[in-house]
Amino acid sequence: MVTKQLVQNVLATKIEDIPQEVRDHGKRSFLNWMGVAIGAAQHESVDMVLELKNDLNGGEQVSILGREEKTDLLLATLVNGMSSHIFDYDDTHLDTIHHPSGPVAPVALALGEHLGLSGEQVLHAFILGCEVELRISNAVYPSHYQLGWHITSSAGVFGAAVAAGTLLELNEEEMLHALGLAGTQSFGLREMFGTMTKPFHPGKAAQNGLLAAMLAKKGFTSSKQVLEAKRGFANVLAPEHDLEKVNVNWGVDWELQKNAFKPYACGIVLHPSIDACINLRKHAEPDEVKSIEVSVNQYVLELTGKPTPQTGLEGKFSIYHTGAIAFLDGDAGEEQYSNEKVLDSKTVAFREKIKPVVNENMKEDEVYAKLTLLDGREFEVKIEHATGSIENPMTDEALIRKFTNLATPIIGAENTEALITTLYNLDQLPNLQEVLAVAGGQKLTTN
Amino acid sequence: MVTKQLVQNVLATKIEDIPQEVRDHGKRSFLNWMGVAIGAAQHESVDMVLELKNDLNGGEQVSILGREEKTDLLLATLVNGMSSHIFDYDDTHLDTIHHPSGPVAPVALALGEHLGLSGEQVLHAFILGCEVELRISNAVYPSHYQLGWHITSSAGVFGAAVAAGTLLELNEEEMLHALGLAGTQSFGLREMFGTMTKPFHPGKAAQNGLLAAMLAKKGFTSSKQVLEAKRGFANVLAPEHDLEKVNVNWGVDWELQKNAFKPYACGIVLHPSIDACINLRKHAEPDEVKSIEVSVNQYVLELTGKPTPQTGLEGKFSIYHTGAIAFLDGDAGEEQYSNEKVLDSKTVAFREKIKPVVNENMKEDEVYAKLTLLDGREFEVKIEHATGSIENPMTDEALIRKFTNLATPIIGAENTEALITTLYNLDQLPNLQEVLAVAGGQKLTTN
Repeated sequence: MVTKQLVQNVLATKIEDIPQEVRDHGKRSFLNWMGVAIGAAQHESVDMVLELKNDLNGGEQVSILGREEKTDLLLATLVNGMSSHIFDYDDTHLDTIHHPSGPVAPVALALGEHLGLSGEQVLHAFILGCEVELRISNAVYPSHYQLGWHITSSAGVFGAAVAAGTLLELNEEEMLHALGLAGTQSFGLREMFGTMTKPFHPGKAAQNGLLAAMLAKKGFTSSKQVLEAKRGFANVLAPEHDLEKVNVNWGVDWELQKNAFKPYACGIVLHPSIDACINLRKHAEPDEVKSIEVSVNQYVLELTGKPTPQTGLEGKFSIYHTGAIAFLDGDAGEEQYSNEKVLDSKTVAFREKIKPVVNENMKEDEVYAKLTLLDGREFEVKIEHATGSIENPMTDEALIRKFTNLATPIIGAENTEALITTLYNLDQLPNLQEVLAVAGGQKLTTN
Repeated sequence: MVTKQLVQNVLATKIEDIPQEVRDHGKRSFLNWMGVAIGAAQHESVDMVLELKNDLNGGEQVSILGREEKTDLLLATLVNGMSSHIFDYDDTHLDTIHHPSGPVAPVALALGEHLGLSGEQVLHAFILGCEVELRISNAVYPSHYQLGWHITSSAGVFGAAVAAGTLLELNEEEMLHALGLAGTQSFGLREMFGTMTKPFHPGKAAQNGLLAAMLAKKGFTSSKQVLEAKRGFANVLAPEHDLEKVNVNWGVDWELQKNAFKPYACGIVLHPSIDACINLRKHAEPDEVKSIEVSVNQYVLELTGKPTPQTGLEGKFSIYHTGAIAFLDGDAGEEQYSNEKVLDSKTVAFREKIKPVVNENMKEDEVYAKLTLLDGREFEVKIEHATGSIENPMTDEALIRKFTNLATPIIGAENTEALITTLYNLDQLPNLQEVLAVAGGQKLTTN
């Protein structure tokens, strides 16, 4: 009955049943998603997947973010879902390490454009899709993730199907079949981390979920109890699970409100150190600095102890590089993790002043940092909750800065500014034309 | 090293390294696959999936078996893989309950047509794909299947990738990435059995595997140790496994030779009873029969004890209906499991003469049957290995009869006859034009 109850909950939840603060956080999530997708839109792996359009002689139906091409619905969801995860810079439901927007937002965007739906309809489908996938993640985490499943795709496929099913106006029977078709296509191994296949996961989950809903709409049949059946999703993919969590307090608690945004383009364990170094830079110019001692949990240094990174990707796993750019630039975006920045002589010289120290008293998300100047003066800072955590969320100002840094090099400053205004107004838009006129599918002008 | 060794084995195995009897059984497997695919080509679920071509404004690249439409490569593999599993009448590797052709043959066919390759190249790719998926199945069976995975899709996706990779001429590095991309897309829950989603599985596995190889060819990166990695395929999807079996005796033992064909369009547990009733019909006309007592293993009656089936599908789970049509018609094909046949008054009357009896001494694949006539005469028969088992394989004559019964209503007698001749000659064909001129993608003439 879990699956059936979930479908009934979804179908009963109209946009006006969703509290204003949840809608607002939904809009923020959608905006954050679109920023990271546009930012990575010119990546070589996106080029490769987009070539499929020509390989398959495919149709031109909907827009690709940050690109001039248009593709058919299914390919567009694959591409837009993939690009949003390439920088590892998308949103995170911290309780389950699930990145909710990746599999869901591309579906809402593609169908919204294709069917000429309103911004409110798109937001409604997006919020319901995220809520469903996150509740399913709650039910199977941590055993499912620990076993080796990339939960963003393996549970995300349900969210994609619900978003699509909402916009295709599936009835109860059809939505049940859509979830069955989605669940049987659940996939994604964590072994793929560190390769192009990791960001492929949310894109493919979006595509699988959309396909599920499209077929269900035609009367294609599937199991109606995919979550709880003996050989269904939970029993097969999660050694331990609690399906009670799928429907508990539906409409009262909203998992999407626990969705956090990354202010920095690297693993979350480095975020407190970045906050600390940005805080300390007000006290001195770089050439006045003798050292910055950064006290962290042992686990942090295990993951980020690379002293001499050679590429941008390696820089993301180096507390030395990361501390240096945070102090020098006051930020840690994609620009600070470029290959050039990692090899830049000023950065390389400064990173030798970063002195990490393991301190048993530090939690994983804490840091204590001490700045020592050449003249002997010292300044200290302790970070207990990094920017972007639930306790210390990114401000809208910071979110807009992140979006701007990501989108401007791809679609230009003017389009970026217009897009931000439009997305904060998403639920008032009669359709998505205003969004897509600047976000993709049109001739790009970046100057 | 398992994955790497497997790829090296695949790349080192040229068509001339494959023994003639394996090639011959490969041709039989391909023919059997095409027959069941053509036979189900007009099923309503095929109509639904083919509508995606219009929904997506898709390209026309390659043929759909038993249909006039053409679609792009990826959609064609989905459709042709699905239709071949709709009747549950395709081939079976009895050691692992894996139906090997479904995920692999559609890929070989589609790329063979698209690239204008020879029949020998297509057969080569088909055999290698089957060999890989069956060896992977051997390594994870039975725990993988018992957990709830539909092994035909979950392991089949590797076979699809290898077949595609062979025809796309991937090098070692690319083939490793293709297997990584395929393995992470492994999917398919047994909970879907009994719905349209079951036959969807091999089709989607074919599509996923083809996509994997197409992306790998472009330089898309993935894990190079998908089978053996800590969070790779075997550890995540099979509680117990023995990866030794993947490469053992490569080139000496051929799993494809253990591929069996179903002579009858129902579950394999009923096949001995059908053989018995067909054997007994030589002794009497239907109106002379008092009863046919059929002694079977308890498990057989549990699965097939439905006394009064109302639909063709229910008829497949009724030893009463099945015994009746086997005696009356001397066959048990799709025609004998039509809705009309199940409700036909002559069949309904005769099925009351079928008397199943549980006999502890009978193995699951054995049956003892006794025909009693109204005049008191009795005739007996014992079946130890049903037709279609490894010990008693279908003759080419029976295979041709099966193919003819399936294909004739869809593509007509003349095309069917031509197709059989052509497929037995597959490895001599310069390209697939002769096959596809009669099997699909052309204007169908069934009279």
